[in-house]
Amino acid sequence: MHNQGLSSYHPPERLLLGPGPTNMDARVLAALSRPVIGHLDPSFQEFMEDLKTKLRVVFQTNNAMTLPISAPGSAGMELCLRNLLSPGDTAIICVNGVFGQRMCENVRRADAVCITVEDDWGRPIDPQKLEDTLRKHPEARLVGCVHAETSTGVGSDVRTLASIAHQYDCMIVVDAVTSLGGMELRVDDWELDAVYSGSQKCLGCTPGLSPVTLNERALHYIRNRSEPVRSWFLDVNLLSGYWQPDQRRSYHHTAPVHTLFALHEACILLLNEGLENAWERHAAAHRMLKAALDRCGMEFAVAAECRLPQLNAVRIPDGVNDAEGRARLLQDFNIEVGAGLGVLAGKIWRVGLMGPNACRASIDRLLPALQSLLPG
Amino acid sequence: MHNQGLSSYHPPERLLLGPGPTNMDARVLAALSRPVIGHLDPSFQEFMEDLKTKLRVVFQTNNAMTLPISAPGSAGMELCLRNLLSPGDTAIICVNGVFGQRMCENVRRADAVCITVEDDWGRPIDPQKLEDTLRKHPEARLVGCVHAETSTGVGSDVRTLASIAHQYDCMIVVDAVTSLGGMELRVDDWELDAVYSGSQKCLGCTPGLSPVTLNERALHYIRNRSEPVRSWFLDVNLLSGYWQPDQRRSYHHTAPVHTLFALHEACILLLNEGLENAWERHAAAHRMLKAALDRCGMEFAVAAECRLPQLNAVRIPDGVNDAEGRARLLQDFNIEVGAGLGVLAGKIWRVGLMGPNACRASIDRLLPALQSLLPG
Repeated sequence: MHNQGLSSYHPPERLLLGPGPTNMDARVLAALSRPVIGHLDPSFQEFMEDLKTKLRVVFQTNNAMTLPISAPGSAGMELCLRNLLSPGDTAIICVNGVFGQRMCENVRRADAVCITVEDDWGRPIDPQKLEDTLRKHPEARLVGCVHAETSTGVGSDVRTLASIAHQYDCMIVVDAVTSLGGMELRVDDWELDAVYSGSQKCLGCTPGLSPVTLNERALHYIRNRSEPVRSWFLDVNLLSGYWQPDQRRSYHHTAPVHTLFALHEACILLLNEGLENAWERHAAAHRMLKAALDRCGMEFAVAAECRLPQLNAVRIPDGVNDAEGRARLLQDFNIEVGAGLGVLAGKIWRVGLMGPNACRASIDRLLPALQSLLPG
Repeated sequence: MHNQGLSSYHPPERLLLGPGPTNMDARVLAALSRPVIGHLDPSFQEFMEDLKTKLRVVFQTNNAMTLPISAPGSAGMELCLRNLLSPGDTAIICVNGVFGQRMCENVRRADAVCITVEDDWGRPIDPQKLEDTLRKHPEARLVGCVHAETSTGVGSDVRTLASIAHQYDCMIVVDAVTSLGGMELRVDDWELDAVYSGSQKCLGCTPGLSPVTLNERALHYIRNRSEPVRSWFLDVNLLSGYWQPDQRRSYHHTAPVHTLFALHEACILLLNEGLENAWERHAAAHRMLKAALDRCGMEFAVAAECRLPQLNAVRIPDGVNDAEGRARLLQDFNIEVGAGLGVLAGKIWRVGLMGPNACRASIDRLLPALQSLLPG
């Protein structure tokens, strides 16, 4: 029970070029210190409706049930899988990295049966494998897949995966934690049934919220479940009473008002820029990174056709120690890059160019820092 | 997908005298807009350890597993009950308001059997009833109770309830959402096995975090569960890997760094003041409120011996309409008070004096506002 001192914490000013969080625009940061307001205040209620409207544009959906969950992206994942599966159900999960694995873990903890479609880490999901697996498992009710695998820097074609899932009468749940705001994602056009994301990546907001959208097919299942969802905090039926747009809004939990102010401001910046312009800005930053790596003689670990612009798996150069290299970037240059995970640990660095960091200034700071690490 | 406009949201400046959130000290608000940092940064790791140390003082515990959950108090409740119960277990929950009921709902959704000990809303839990129930249910493994019932403004003697629970070899889970920081709570001295709270009440921080503490008895159960916890996001075994104080900290989720900065700053203010001084300040504000209500001819709905200082159930005066009265307080005076819930809806207002609002200035603004509502 002893104190280590009573000094305020002043974090160092880092350039966050890892897998998230990313740096935030000054306007988004400023929104975090607006006056606190009650979560049932009529003014906050209007604000919530406006935020939902903006999230619909970001997700490219008209889904009424589009809302920010008051917890990180992992809770959004758990919400989607927990609400859309009942014990004994079968789900097919596409796995090519950490977040596919995490989906599997969530399926099992929902007492559902998990069948996997596996591809190598660093490769996209092969739609043919999903189709083969669906054919073998007519009992499957749901397919889960990751749009942008944060652990490997690989994008999968979730539009095609969704279309296959629907042919076999399965709903599709999509992890868009790292994709939303940073690359093309069209929830309605692509007929995605449930999609979750995170606030701290390409949206350029602080961590702590998981924007989620569910279509009518998903909601129909949730409303007609034969047993309650095995979570109180993440029960969509209860949350929908809280987030409904009228005066009878029922109390569920206390919304994290400041984090929501920041998300709202981040959405404004994104919509002011235009969603497609933001996608293109992320793509352009990726091209600048490629040019910079070429100058260093460094290379991507992932084939060009499935590389994510916003999260780049870069091979650690020969002669550079993983942990030492990242420590030097942090200590000498105040630049954070991400370590490799799982089978890619020690082999790659994950270089994020997300939200406001998807710009030339990031590359201009990163390039000399990387060059300083290279032997000889 | 249409926008309602791209204006930033500027919340009105309210005096929040409801059940929470409460207003925040300027220092806590300022901490929210410090630079973002990576949740795996060595500097943030030190910060996390320091925050845990401070939370231990606030909880009055030496429990190693004392940490802020990255979600609101309701998630802290779910975490405690979900980790400490396995399907088929029996739990006895003491119910005298909304949050006792919510505990029951969580027990059922953990596939456990819920036995209730019920007292009227507005009355504390009778320890004799708990003992009688424990005698009838030797299969019970866990007792749950609410220290400060936010829905009614009633405090229960959780120290005595814990001692009875232990006599019958049950663990005790305590809801301290509204009590922590605002009234005496001594986790170790009172031998409480698992306690959860919220950031936005007497701690005077922004909403979004649930400080939780678990003792060795609770952790022993969790470590030796025969099946995994039926939640990924709230699994204490996984969280403990994330929050452990060394370099091998394993990634679990992205911590909400800004909200944590604010909680840290709020703890500093509380510890600078001294915990017992803060408890006394809340008690003093309650006495000032009583004097003010006396001047208005208004009265408490709860007997003096079990009134919470920080959350006051006040009878709506004759001739005053519930919703209209609260709307006038909000519109004409920018003061929020809370509505009654459940059987107390329309009968009481809940007047919170929490964190920085537990002071004379709150009463001085509230008194004339209340007087203006009174008929005649």
